[in-house]
Amino acid sequence: MKQNIYDNPTFFEGYMKLRDSKMTYNDFLEQPAMKDALPDLKGKRVMDLGCGTGGLSKYCIEMGASAVVGVDISEKMISRALVENNDENIKYVCSPIEDLSYPIEPFDLIVSSLAIHYIEDYESLIRKLHTLLNPNGILIYSIEHPVVTARKDMRNWWKNENGERLHWALDHYREEGKREQHWYVDGVIKYHRTLQTLVNGLIGHGFMLERMLEPLSTKEGLNLMPDLKNEERRPSFLIIKSRKTD
Amino acid sequence: MKQNIYDNPTFFEGYMKLRDSKMTYNDFLEQPAMKDALPDLKGKRVMDLGCGTGGLSKYCIEMGASAVVGVDISEKMISRALVENNDENIKYVCSPIEDLSYPIEPFDLIVSSLAIHYIEDYESLIRKLHTLLNPNGILIYSIEHPVVTARKDMRNWWKNENGERLHWALDHYREEGKREQHWYVDGVIKYHRTLQTLVNGLIGHGFMLERMLEPLSTKEGLNLMPDLKNEERRPSFLIIKSRKTD
Repeated sequence: MKQNIYDNPTFFEGYMKLRDSKMTYNDFLEQPAMKDALPDLKGKRVMDLGCGTGGLSKYCIEMGASAVVGVDISEKMISRALVENNDENIKYVCSPIEDLSYPIEPFDLIVSSLAIHYIEDYESLIRKLHTLLNPNGILIYSIEHPVVTARKDMRNWWKNENGERLHWALDHYREEGKREQHWYVDGVIKYHRTLQTLVNGLIGHGFMLERMLEPLSTKEGLNLMPDLKNEERRPSFLIIKSRKTD
Repeated sequence: MKQNIYDNPTFFEGYMKLRDSKMTYNDFLEQPAMKDALPDLKGKRVMDLGCGTGGLSKYCIEMGASAVVGVDISEKMISRALVENNDENIKYVCSPIEDLSYPIEPFDLIVSSLAIHYIEDYESLIRKLHTLLNPNGILIYSIEHPVVTARKDMRNWWKNENGERLHWALDHYREEGKREQHWYVDGVIKYHRTLQTLVNGLIGHGFMLERMLEPLSTKEGLNLMPDLKNEERRPSFLIIKSRKTD
C-alpha cells in the first residue's frame, strides 16, 4: 500500500494552511537550496517527482525548461496544481512514484523535493529513475536529513525545564525503515535511511555524485522565522545532486 | 603550528596501552571496514597518511602492495613503526602531512586512518593528495563521523540519573573548526567538518565518490566490547572512498 497522506482531508487542510502562509522551512531553507542546485534548464525536459501543488514544476518552466511532467500520488495536490500552476508545457500525473509506467520520453533532469523519504524501496526507485533519464541526465533530490529521521521518538530537540533547546537527540541511526509521526494527523510514515545507503544506492545504480547540500536559511527566513537559526545546530534537510553515468 | 599530540609522553603512554590491548574501536570497527574497502593491492604503490605504528602499512604489503610510504607527524610513532612493522618495501617518513614535499613517485592508492580530522585545512590537503595520485588513483580515508565531532561539549551520550544512555547529543553542526578534547591529556584538537564540506571538497578537487561507509562492529568486537552495540545508535566513524578523475 502506497502512502497517500496528502489526500487525508485533515492533513490536507493543515498542510495547505501552512503552505499558503509562505512561512515554512521549505520556503526559506529547502527550496532556495534546491533552486540553487538546478543546472541550466533552457530547453530541458524535467520530471518533478512528488510535485505537490506544482510550484517547482512551474519554476522549471519559468527558468526555460521545455516540458515538465509533475507526478504526485495525491489527487488533491494534483487538482491544486492544475489550478495554481497550470501551464501548457506542464503535464500533471496522479500516480504513486513507484507505479509510474506510462511510456515516457526520457528526461534531462529529475527533481524531487521532500518526497523520497515517503518511499519504502529506495533501490528500486533509483533504478527506475535511472531508466527515466537521458545519458548524463541529472537527479536532484531533497529529503529530511538522516540525523532528523533517525530517532524513533520524533521529539528530537532535547529541552530543559525552561523549554530551552539543549541539543538535538540522535538515536537508532542504523535501524533503517519506518518512522511514524504525528503531522496534522497520526500515522504519517517516513522512511529513515543512513547516509551510506543513500550515497551507495546512487553510486551502485549508475549515478555519480555531483554535490551534497545541508542548507541554511536565507536571511529573509531568519528575520521572519528566528527558529531557523537552529539549522546551524543540526540540519533539517539533505540535498543530493547526481548525474547518470551509464 | 601542526598538532603533534602523539609525541606528548603522557598521551603516547596512554594511547600505546590502549592500542596494545587490541581492544579498541579501531580493531573491531574502523580497521575491518577500511580493509574491506581497499581495492586489489597487488603491485600497487601505497601511501599511508598518518600511519602511526605502521599496522595498516604492513597490511598493505601483506596484501601484495609493491611499496608503501608511511607518513606520520610523530617521531615516537615512526620509531615504533620501524620496530613493529618494519619491511624492506615500506619507507616511514616523519613529517606533518601538510609539509610533505620530498619528490615522490605518485601512488596508486592513498589510505588514511583516523588522521584527517587532525588537519586544519581540508581543501589544501585534498588538493595535495590529488597531485600525489596516479590517474584513476584511489583515496580512502576514515575520520570521526561529523555527528560525533559536531558538538563542542564532547560529553555526547546523554545519560539519565542511572547512567543509562538516553540518546546521542548533537549540536553546533554547521560551526566547523576546532574541537578541543581531553584524551589522556588536555587540548587534543580535532577539526569538525560537515558532510557537505567533506563530499564537495573531494568532488570539487578532481575526485569521484565510490563508496561511503558508516561501519558497525564485527561479531568478535561485540562479544569482547558490548558497548560497541551502541554503534547502531550513532556511527562513530565515516569512511569515504574516492577516485581521482582528472
